[in-house]
Amino acid sequence: MSRGCLYGVGVGTGNPELITIKALRIIQSVPVIAYPASETGNSFARSIVAEFIQGNQIEVPIVLPFKLEKSAQPAYDEAAEQLAQHLNDGRDVAVLCEGDPFFYGSFMYIYDRLSPKFDSEIIPGISSVMASAAMIGIPLTYRNDVFIVLSGILSKEVLKEKLKAADAAVIIKLGRNFTKVKQVLQELGLVERAKYIENATRENQQILSIDEVEAETVPYFSLIVVPSQGELRVRS
Amino acid sequence: MSRGCLYGVGVGTGNPELITIKALRIIQSVPVIAYPASETGNSFARSIVAEFIQGNQIEVPIVLPFKLEKSAQPAYDEAAEQLAQHLNDGRDVAVLCEGDPFFYGSFMYIYDRLSPKFDSEIIPGISSVMASAAMIGIPLTYRNDVFIVLSGILSKEVLKEKLKAADAAVIIKLGRNFTKVKQVLQELGLVERAKYIENATRENQQILSIDEVEAETVPYFSLIVVPSQGELRVRS
Repeated sequence: MSRGCLYGVGVGTGNPELITIKALRIIQSVPVIAYPASETGNSFARSIVAEFIQGNQIEVPIVLPFKLEKSAQPAYDEAAEQLAQHLNDGRDVAVLCEGDPFFYGSFMYIYDRLSPKFDSEIIPGISSVMASAAMIGIPLTYRNDVFIVLSGILSKEVLKEKLKAADAAVIIKLGRNFTKVKQVLQELGLVERAKYIENATRENQQILSIDEVEAETVPYFSLIVVPSQGELRVRS
Repeated sequence: MSRGCLYGVGVGTGNPELITIKALRIIQSVPVIAYPASETGNSFARSIVAEFIQGNQIEVPIVLPFKLEKSAQPAYDEAAEQLAQHLNDGRDVAVLCEGDPFFYGSFMYIYDRLSPKFDSEIIPGISSVMASAAMIGIPLTYRNDVFIVLSGILSKEVLKEKLKAADAAVIIKLGRNFTKVKQVLQELGLVERAKYIENATRENQQILSIDEVEAETVPYFSLIVVPSQGELRVRS
């Protein structure tokens, strides 16, 4: 019997209509669906595509402690072992991935463990970077812009230096880093240009100017978009 | 009569299955479809979704001189005027955009002209950045990596400086800039890590190591992915 294929399936940022036709086909045809889940069993990735799941498929939640990434490695070991069993038995496995599987995802921890041993295929997904710019309604990058993605976890000095060197940027992983990031934007004169977004493409989506954001309420997966000034350059 | 809505519809990088369900719905429901086209009438964006176009819709090619972006501005003026007419008459217009509409696209030149006057909505698309990493099969960014997108048109010095400051990168717009970019990768010791891809997700897709690429044959829309070394860090 031939072995199964591992699919990393990008499911985008929350709106079920923003998954690709291919992702839909894979999700509806594989016998095994896996997804990251909290200790209470909630899975954001699964919730995005819940309406498309057939009900006769094996589901494998990859239960992860949310905050402490290092201690998550044993959970990935265990999940990889469980999925390897299905693959060895000839069953294709789709791992649902928020956004895009290879862009700041946790799927890589599964992929790095299983791809040396099994066939695999990645179905790219709509990243929060593109989704957020689309929802805000401001073009992100023009022509030969330098575009950068930064994590809010980086130090103030590093954030400042990197932002200065780019024409457009997205700052991810805000949460309790918001106040620090806001300071950096203030010091660089970027507060007016930047936009804050949380729950992009979901029903509870919020788009705010930086000054409107209440720092205490900022979720980890919110982000700030600093769009290019390309429009000005093009028009001038 | 109410006025039409302008949709910027991302159609991804070439594989028709990599458009979103929403893009498909919009493409099949609007009365007017517009797309960039060459002077000979070819349109890559249209070719991606050709199988989904109903045949009873008005089509508006936005005919552009391919190489000289500056002189394209009158063409955008003319196209915007033509589309404004449809919108004024109450017809929704979908503009097909390769990749993602707001990420280094030409749609912005239409958007900047029409969005102040008409309702608009952007449907994000799979960018060549995510599609290429998926096809190559190497995770692009981990955790708190600094990720950068650079145009091959930038000078050798700028490319070098920016690449040094990032953990992972994608270099777009190669074409005749390939040899310069290769030199930069050599000087930074990145030749082994980098991968070249052309026609990502299409039937004629090619993935090559940098040393295998014949500089004379490199298309403008090919790109180089320099993936994160995150795997090493995670494993160590």
